[in-house]
Amino acid sequence: MAMKTVLNLRNQLEKFANSRKLSFTSNKLAPIKYAERNNSGTLLKVEFTDDKANEYPSSFLQDNCTCPQCFHPSSLSRTRKMTQLNLQNVLEKVEFNLNQVKCTWGDGHEGVFTENWLFDRRFTTDNINYLKTGLRDDPILVESSHKLHTANFNQVLNDKSVLNDTLMTLCKVGVVLIQDGPLEVGGLRKLVDKIGFIRQTHYGHEFTVKSEKNAANLAYTSIHLCVHTDLPYYVYPPGVQLLHCIKQFVGDGGRSHLVDGFLVADKMLQAYPKEFKTLCKVPLEFSDVGKDFIEFNKVHHSPTFVLEPRTGKVTRIVYSNQQLSSYQPIPIDQVDEVYHALKVFTDLCYDPKNLIQFKLNDGEMLVFDNWRYLHGREGFDPSAGDRHLEGCYVDWDEIFSRIRILQEKS
Amino acid sequence: MAMKTVLNLRNQLEKFANSRKLSFTSNKLAPIKYAERNNSGTLLKVEFTDDKANEYPSSFLQDNCTCPQCFHPSSLSRTRKMTQLNLQNVLEKVEFNLNQVKCTWGDGHEGVFTENWLFDRRFTTDNINYLKTGLRDDPILVESSHKLHTANFNQVLNDKSVLNDTLMTLCKVGVVLIQDGPLEVGGLRKLVDKIGFIRQTHYGHEFTVKSEKNAANLAYTSIHLCVHTDLPYYVYPPGVQLLHCIKQFVGDGGRSHLVDGFLVADKMLQAYPKEFKTLCKVPLEFSDVGKDFIEFNKVHHSPTFVLEPRTGKVTRIVYSNQQLSSYQPIPIDQVDEVYHALKVFTDLCYDPKNLIQFKLNDGEMLVFDNWRYLHGREGFDPSAGDRHLEGCYVDWDEIFSRIRILQEKS
Repeated sequence: MAMKTVLNLRNQLEKFANSRKLSFTSNKLAPIKYAERNNSGTLLKVEFTDDKANEYPSSFLQDNCTCPQCFHPSSLSRTRKMTQLNLQNVLEKVEFNLNQVKCTWGDGHEGVFTENWLFDRRFTTDNINYLKTGLRDDPILVESSHKLHTANFNQVLNDKSVLNDTLMTLCKVGVVLIQDGPLEVGGLRKLVDKIGFIRQTHYGHEFTVKSEKNAANLAYTSIHLCVHTDLPYYVYPPGVQLLHCIKQFVGDGGRSHLVDGFLVADKMLQAYPKEFKTLCKVPLEFSDVGKDFIEFNKVHHSPTFVLEPRTGKVTRIVYSNQQLSSYQPIPIDQVDEVYHALKVFTDLCYDPKNLIQFKLNDGEMLVFDNWRYLHGREGFDPSAGDRHLEGCYVDWDEIFSRIRILQEKS
Repeated sequence: MAMKTVLNLRNQLEKFANSRKLSFTSNKLAPIKYAERNNSGTLLKVEFTDDKANEYPSSFLQDNCTCPQCFHPSSLSRTRKMTQLNLQNVLEKVEFNLNQVKCTWGDGHEGVFTENWLFDRRFTTDNINYLKTGLRDDPILVESSHKLHTANFNQVLNDKSVLNDTLMTLCKVGVVLIQDGPLEVGGLRKLVDKIGFIRQTHYGHEFTVKSEKNAANLAYTSIHLCVHTDLPYYVYPPGVQLLHCIKQFVGDGGRSHLVDGFLVADKMLQAYPKEFKTLCKVPLEFSDVGKDFIEFNKVHHSPTFVLEPRTGKVTRIVYSNQQLSSYQPIPIDQVDEVYHALKVFTDLCYDPKNLIQFKLNDGEMLVFDNWRYLHGREGFDPSAGDRHLEGCYVDWDEIFSRIRILQEKS
């Protein structure tokens, strides 16, 4: 990746990190200049010395009262019941000093709110937009000419700022190559322990990718593997995939394929809007039947491009040629339209401008967004040597959580 | 539950089971009466002796060819690439006998399809509707007057038809009380092993519900717990919750509360359509910060009523009074509207017509749809005795998968 892009990325990540800290653990001095209720008592009005006037609904303050009657401190949880809420129970009295506001409601209940608590929870457009922003929003699209972001295995494990950068890159760029990892099984778990825990599936916790006879999954053969997202037959496919190369195949073949599905979706939206729409609208059936860690018979329907209602943008790619079911819930007169759109999509995936090709080295771990990147593999000759990868999944929930913890503490 | 309802349920479940078997493992004799291509070669036309004429797009047959070149038998996966698909490569020749159809395409490729394969994959409206139907569709709504469905712990473990009935009841009714379970820890895992595996969260695999000092979750206190769905701060909250009562509190208090969220949503839709719409449209922030199995800082936004795009109906309730964040991404002029709708919702939850109240007995396991039922607990006096529950989660994917396996084999 060009240096300019790297710098831009760094700025963007820092901006995000700062914004998070600002909003959630404000240490900012924002003394209260003035506080009062409106005439009807439905609003608290607060003016901070360095900000414009702000309003807080009485209902919101009632619901978020942190007095011992209303709030349980060690679990940080509300004990006040929603059924107790009374929108007619408005503010009767508001008192303030530089550090806090004391509210008294019509029923006599009193609540005290500190300046920082109030400042952080201002109902400004900026704050609301900030709260609505997800860590995977505004992805940086990746063409095949971009060099993969790399990180050192031991640094990721031992340096929290490297771990934070790695996870933020995973959110925004969607792929990181972790280098100089162990040459034996167990490295994945060491890495995942620094984040959260492995997402188990019917293939178990870690899964072994070796060429097998009677393989329950095409990945466990030496056959060419079309680019795909993993586990499209799950209602909730795993968010992130980790593939640890223990031993690479020596010889021709066995190269990894990777393509940024958000990039391809974006190109389709520009050049093939009709086909893009088809893949957003038509749910396809994916299935997986067999036995591995447990016996399984999975069936799920999903559009290829899943849109996030909040942003209207593609948030998840769900596609696997090998797991596309032979049962399809598509009216017969739409079948050719769907196949045409899928062909446009997969042709774009294999366009050399988009398809990233490389051979993992022994000890390297490829970590990528399984809701975004499609991955695959060239076929290879299993009689010419071994190839051994270990894989596992981690869900986005645990990654977002870890990023918040790392950024709170930094 | 009245006997009539039970009988209706049984009919409905059997109908579903039969329909599944029929469609996916047809043993029906449906010899082919006639098969031909249309003039342009884009369609195969097949008439079965006991059915009307059916059409199959050439593209669909190309894509689903099961010859050794196109299909890998042990993984049941397509090896033919979508990039190879050619919509101009139409059917040139169709031959048939009573058992199979042989297709030859313009490029010379040949594929053979058996009568059963073709019969099962007819593009009929019935088949498409069947494929689109989810196991949780058409729920049977449950008021507080209904008696809980029960099952015997050992029978669920040892009799596959009882396990199937239990899981189907869980899909349709959403709650089952499993009785005569062990009086010690470990029963949950025995049960879950018969289904799939535990969904891990930041509270671990199994979690212990006892009254604790400095509890990281309000559940781990003796305080009244408002009815809620678990883990609303996860992008993907666990599908099913299991609560095993090892030792019930003796004395007043400690009763379980349970309410069918689909019932309440339905009543809101009828009586409070505006408030229903608000809860479908406005995402609320839920959060959980602390340390348990691992350190966590979870934040997620979800509407209270999540609609399934396929059906337009509520598929998931996401609500927890105690985990509702004090940061809300709501414009200030919508705050009172949202609180009003939440109060209507929670008032309906606590309406005696809707709220199921009971005390779990030692050894009983309550298993319920965490995307549907809200659960809670009366407060109790922890100094008057112990109360010990073990809990865990299982995801719907694994339950649906197990049902398919059980029904394939029955």
